[in-house]
Amino acid sequence: MSLSTSSIATESTVTKKLTQALNGKRTSPPPIWLMRQAGRYLPEYMEIRKSAGDFLSLCYTPELAAEVTLQPVRRFGLDAAIIFSDILVIPDALGQNVRFAEGEGPLLEPVRTSEQIERLDRGGLEDRLGPVYQALECVRKELSPDVALIGFAGAPWTVATYMVEGGGSRDFSLVKGWAFSAPDEFQRLIDVLVEATSAHLISQIAAGAEALQIFDTWAGALPEQAFIRWCVLPVKEIVSRVREKHPRVPIIGFPRGVGVAYKMYGRETGVNALSIDSSVPLAWAASDLQPICVVQGNLDPAMLLAGGKPMISAAKDIVATLGERGFVFNLGHGIIRTTPPDHVAALVEEVRAS
Amino acid sequence: MSLSTSSIATESTVTKKLTQALNGKRTSPPPIWLMRQAGRYLPEYMEIRKSAGDFLSLCYTPELAAEVTLQPVRRFGLDAAIIFSDILVIPDALGQNVRFAEGEGPLLEPVRTSEQIERLDRGGLEDRLGPVYQALECVRKELSPDVALIGFAGAPWTVATYMVEGGGSRDFSLVKGWAFSAPDEFQRLIDVLVEATSAHLISQIAAGAEALQIFDTWAGALPEQAFIRWCVLPVKEIVSRVREKHPRVPIIGFPRGVGVAYKMYGRETGVNALSIDSSVPLAWAASDLQPICVVQGNLDPAMLLAGGKPMISAAKDIVATLGERGFVFNLGHGIIRTTPPDHVAALVEEVRAS
Repeated sequence: MSLSTSSIATESTVTKKLTQALNGKRTSPPPIWLMRQAGRYLPEYMEIRKSAGDFLSLCYTPELAAEVTLQPVRRFGLDAAIIFSDILVIPDALGQNVRFAEGEGPLLEPVRTSEQIERLDRGGLEDRLGPVYQALECVRKELSPDVALIGFAGAPWTVATYMVEGGGSRDFSLVKGWAFSAPDEFQRLIDVLVEATSAHLISQIAAGAEALQIFDTWAGALPEQAFIRWCVLPVKEIVSRVREKHPRVPIIGFPRGVGVAYKMYGRETGVNALSIDSSVPLAWAASDLQPICVVQGNLDPAMLLAGGKPMISAAKDIVATLGERGFVFNLGHGIIRTTPPDHVAALVEEVRAS
Repeated sequence: MSLSTSSIATESTVTKKLTQALNGKRTSPPPIWLMRQAGRYLPEYMEIRKSAGDFLSLCYTPELAAEVTLQPVRRFGLDAAIIFSDILVIPDALGQNVRFAEGEGPLLEPVRTSEQIERLDRGGLEDRLGPVYQALECVRKELSPDVALIGFAGAPWTVATYMVEGGGSRDFSLVKGWAFSAPDEFQRLIDVLVEATSAHLISQIAAGAEALQIFDTWAGALPEQAFIRWCVLPVKEIVSRVREKHPRVPIIGFPRGVGVAYKMYGRETGVNALSIDSSVPLAWAASDLQPICVVQGNLDPAMLLAGGKPMISAAKDIVATLGERGFVFNLGHGIIRTTPPDHVAALVEEVRAS
């Protein structure tokens, strides 16, 4: 008992670079973690993946999910671990049939009517996602106290695209067709997702998450008014619900590909930090976003394929332009499967030396 | 002879709303045409498509390509016809094996080495693309003199993504991996495409095109420095080569998804107009882009699926915000295959009444 109390006290006083930076403190060198840092480019991940069976089973087996979460932190000495999970655990926990077919991406039995929205099982979330929270607890126990643990969820709009389209999409014709022609009906799906996502994020904090990221991968597919209604307002509501319970846990928003509208998103949602994609010009991020929010990003993941001088030079530019204020080094999108792990090691070394 | 001279004189003095608007003149109501206005959502197109065999044969049969170009103009009374063709006629004319597999998108035998770049057949372009120019001539003869004829090409970066990836891509890992790790080698492919694209656009003007659009569909996939090198500078060079021969033909640039960087692209390339995707906030386009360039856009194509009040209200907003200056009504991306033609008719009626 005394041991556990003292270890909690130690943890809370230990300096975590990531949470410092997310709270707006300039840290030099900046903290670094990488989206999709655990995954198929790592041979040690492929080993575990083989033994786990399908992808969702890996997410739902706490010891295995914890192990793959820790792998990149051990290998590269990153400043944060992000729990190994998927944005589609929410529809899965809501009782929608979700599966990951090898090489095809996710396949879902689509939700396309009000009746199908009402049939979603909103009560079983906590139980169904228990293994995710257990995995977080395992990771937090193993993790060095100076490394932060990040929980995450997909934003309602992005999760809704998969739920309605039944998988990935090129033109989002079904989900947008529905949202544009029957906005009040579609709003109900977004509301269900706001509730589920808030609960899931709050439970992740209870299980040990010290920062959160909300992934809105397909935010850039919406025109402004729809973006406000289905991305900005739902995320604002989630942020407010999480803050009510855990006012001090920093939240990163990632509305990928929204261009000029990153600014409005940063101002309106109340997130602590904006994760920016690789297309965002650095000077604009420094002049227009950093006064509003901490910025996280934005090396092109394909630079990790190239490695060598081009990668180092691109990383230097990012740190030189954004490193003067609260800043977290990351990619503009997830690590690509064919990335050589040595390039990741070289990148971490470069950022640490900056 | 005198007939042809007088008909040319008539044409050049007839007021074409599209070219007026592209030259910066405010026209009320604004001209309207729609990206991918000819295509699979039209039953009359499907009729012709069946008889033509494969997709490239349709592009290369002048009477059929001309006919499908004219179909939407006849049906909806649009202000412009855009020649029915494809951005991949350039790699095809350079001797790269290109085919369109039903339901799979384009498939190309990939170009991934310097040797493969050198093996491209840069001499045969004019002959190979002869049918495209004949189709333009056919269309110009049939078209009412107040309707403008638009020629187009893919921008070098976007065409290169297909040439290197061998088709569509989600992460552009092969083309970016190459471009980032061996930029001088990759530059050679861009240079070949600048030359071919300039020649193709110039020949389209000679065959009757009165405005041009350069589609850079995947410009948004590049970080700023790469965007400058592989999108902005090549398009600037193309614009300058076309202007040398035809200084008065207006050119529309469409660097899709580049967000904040539309501004720099508009300033640096010298295009007359910027076609903007649906994610660009209207007020920002009015305040930050219209002082630099004419703006074209940007109704979400999925609004044409919804139709009715939501579509009409979105169209009204666009005209109200952008219609006070040089402006062309269009979509933010191409028409979706499942679009009801009646919704297109209603949209044209709304914009005409604005």
